[in-house]
Amino acid sequence: MSESPYTLHCSSSESGARRGELQTRHGTVQTPIFMPVGTQATVKAVTPENLKEMGAQIILGNTYHLYIRPGHRLIEKFGGLHNFMHWDRPILTDSGGFQIFSLQELAKITEEGASFRSHLDGSKLFLAPEDAIEVQQVLGSDVMMCLDTCIPSPADRKTTEDSTALTGRWAKRCRAAHSNREQLLFGIVQGGMYEDLRRKSAEEMVATGFDGYAIGGLSVGESKEQMHDMIEATVPYLPKDHAVYLMGVGTPEDLVEGVWRGVDMFDCVMPTRNARNGTLFTSTGKVVIKNSRYREDEKPVDERCSCYTCRNYSRAYLRHLFVSREILSYHLNTIHNLHFYLALMEEIRTAVENDSFGRFRKDFYGRLESE
Amino acid sequence: MSESPYTLHCSSSESGARRGELQTRHGTVQTPIFMPVGTQATVKAVTPENLKEMGAQIILGNTYHLYIRPGHRLIEKFGGLHNFMHWDRPILTDSGGFQIFSLQELAKITEEGASFRSHLDGSKLFLAPEDAIEVQQVLGSDVMMCLDTCIPSPADRKTTEDSTALTGRWAKRCRAAHSNREQLLFGIVQGGMYEDLRRKSAEEMVATGFDGYAIGGLSVGESKEQMHDMIEATVPYLPKDHAVYLMGVGTPEDLVEGVWRGVDMFDCVMPTRNARNGTLFTSTGKVVIKNSRYREDEKPVDERCSCYTCRNYSRAYLRHLFVSREILSYHLNTIHNLHFYLALMEEIRTAVENDSFGRFRKDFYGRLESE
Repeated sequence: MSESPYTLHCSSSESGARRGELQTRHGTVQTPIFMPVGTQATVKAVTPENLKEMGAQIILGNTYHLYIRPGHRLIEKFGGLHNFMHWDRPILTDSGGFQIFSLQELAKITEEGASFRSHLDGSKLFLAPEDAIEVQQVLGSDVMMCLDTCIPSPADRKTTEDSTALTGRWAKRCRAAHSNREQLLFGIVQGGMYEDLRRKSAEEMVATGFDGYAIGGLSVGESKEQMHDMIEATVPYLPKDHAVYLMGVGTPEDLVEGVWRGVDMFDCVMPTRNARNGTLFTSTGKVVIKNSRYREDEKPVDERCSCYTCRNYSRAYLRHLFVSREILSYHLNTIHNLHFYLALMEEIRTAVENDSFGRFRKDFYGRLESE
Repeated sequence: MSESPYTLHCSSSESGARRGELQTRHGTVQTPIFMPVGTQATVKAVTPENLKEMGAQIILGNTYHLYIRPGHRLIEKFGGLHNFMHWDRPILTDSGGFQIFSLQELAKITEEGASFRSHLDGSKLFLAPEDAIEVQQVLGSDVMMCLDTCIPSPADRKTTEDSTALTGRWAKRCRAAHSNREQLLFGIVQGGMYEDLRRKSAEEMVATGFDGYAIGGLSVGESKEQMHDMIEATVPYLPKDHAVYLMGVGTPEDLVEGVWRGVDMFDCVMPTRNARNGTLFTSTGKVVIKNSRYREDEKPVDERCSCYTCRNYSRAYLRHLFVSREILSYHLNTIHNLHFYLALMEEIRTAVENDSFGRFRKDFYGRLESE
C-alpha cells in the first residue's frame, strides 16, 4: 500500500461527519460526495456538460453492463471509458457483483467466481475476481471495486457468514490482481445484518489493505434503523485516513444520516430513475409531477433550487411534458433531481466545514416537515 | 394589408433562389430558413438553449396538438406559448388542418368547419376557420396559418377543385378573424397536382391578401418531379415582396430544390424523427447508426459537421447509445440532424448572397455521390 489517496480536512464535533478529499488520476474529489450513476457509459438523459454545470465531480459506471455491451475491449480501443463517453473527470466503476446477483436469477457463485447469463442474449458468462479487476483496469476507471458476493435480504447467519467469508477471499485475489496502481481499488465490507460479521469483514478488508473501503449489502429492504446500525457497526473499524463509501444509497435523508455516521461517498440510481418516473426531489419533499394539482402551477419545482430546470420552467410545463411522454421531460427532470442531490452534498460539505452539521440536519428535517 | 413583413435582399441570377428576411414581433428571421418542428410545446429531445446553439431562428408549433393538450387556454395563463416553453425567438403555428386530416380517419369537413375526435381520448371536437385563428392568437405565435382542407393523394380533379375552393373561402374567413395584427397570417395555396388549380388558388390567396404565402398539400406521396412542377406552378403567381413557405418539406435535397424554385421557408419532422430512429444526415448521405459497420468507428457522424455531437462523440459511441436505447441517443442524434439542416440553410443563404447557388447545388450533389 502506498499512502492513502484520502485527506481528512476536518471532522464534526457532534457527529461522525467528515470533510475531506479523494485524489484520483482525473482530479480531486471533495467529500462527502454523491456520484451520479452512468450505467451504460451515460448518465441517463443528460450530457457530460450538463453534469458539470450541476457540479458533478465524479460519476459511477457499471462494469457488468459495460462488459456485456459494448464490451470492455471495444472501450479499450477508444482509450478507455473516459474518452469513449466524453467525460474527463473521475469515474468509479463497481465490480459487477451486485448486478450479477440482482439481474440474474440463475447466477451461480463458486469459490472460483460467478457464472451467469447475459441479460441481453442469455449467453453464458463467467467472472472471476481477477477478471473483474482486469475489466475495470481496461475501462480505466479512477476507482475500482473488488468483486463481492451478494445475498438475499433477510439472510440467515450461516448464509451471511459464508458469503462474507468468500467476499473476503475474493478481495485478497482482487488485491493481488491489481497491477495498475494509478487506479485506486476499494474493498467492500459485507456481513449482512449481523453487527459482529460487519466488524469481522471490516477488519479483514483493512488487513488486506485497500485505497478506500465501501459498505455493501445495505438498502436491500432492511429498516432505516438496521441500516444505521450496520453503518455504525462498520465505520469504527475502518481507518480514519481512508474514504468510506456507502454503496447504492439512497434517499436525501439517507445521505444526511450516512454523513452523520462517517460516510464520505454515495451513489444511487434514485435521483435519475425517479426523474424518469416523474418524481422530483425538493427541499420540502417529493413532487409527483403528473398530479393534476400541478396543471396550472406557475412555480418552479423547488423555489429553493437554482438548477437550469427550476430557473426556466414551471411545474405546469414539466407536467405537460411528462404526461405527453416527451423526451425533454426526462432531461429536465434528471437535471433537477441530480442538481438537488449534488447541491445537498455541497451544503453538507459547507456545514461540516463550519462545524454546523447538527444545525443543518435539523433545518433539513424542518423543511421536509413544513410541507 | 400593411406593408409586407418580408424584405428581399437579393435574387439568384441563375435560379429562383432569394435571400431575404422576415420581420416578426420576436425578431427578424434570415431566409431561406428551415424551422425545427416543436409539436407539443417542445422540439423533441432538445432544449431551447440547444436550438439556439444550433442556430435555430424560428420554430414551428402544432396548433392541433396544443389545442388538445395542454389546451390553448392553459398556455394563455402562462402568457402564451413562448413563455410556457421558454423560447423567446419567433414561432410559427400551423392551423391544425393537416393534423385533423392525417390523424383523424373520421374527420368530417363541412362549409362551417372541421369536426373530428381527439386522438387522445376520442372526445368530439369542432374547429371553424375563426377558431383556428383564435387559438393561434391565444397561443401568441409570430406567424399564424389559415385553416385549410387536405385531401388524399392522388385525388381526382373534382375532389381537388372542391377542396381547394373551400380552402379559399376559409382563408377569407381566417383573414376576417385576424384581429391581432402584431401576429402575421399566411394563406395556404392548395390545388393538389393540378397546375391550373395551383395557379387559381395562388391568385385567390393573393387577392384575399396575406402577410406571406404557403404551398400546402405537397410531399404527400407524389414524385419529386410532380412536387417541383407544383412549386413552379405556384411561385410565379405569388408576390415577390412576400415570403414563400413550403409546408412539411422535406429532405436536404428537397430544401435545395425548393430554394432553387423560390421557396424561403421550410419545416419538416424529418430531421428530428429520423434522429430518434437512428438515421443521421451527413454531407455524403445518410448514416443508419445501428449498423454494425459503425461498431468500432472512431469518426464523427460527419467530418464536415461542427455540431456538439460531431465535436465530442464517435459513431461507435452513438451506435452504442442507440442500440442500448439510451435517452442520450435521441438527444445527441437530434442535435446533429437539426444542426445539419440549419447549417445547410446557412450555407445556402451565403451561396445566394454570393450569387453562387448554382455552384453550391452542384457541389452539394457531388458530395452526396462521393459516398
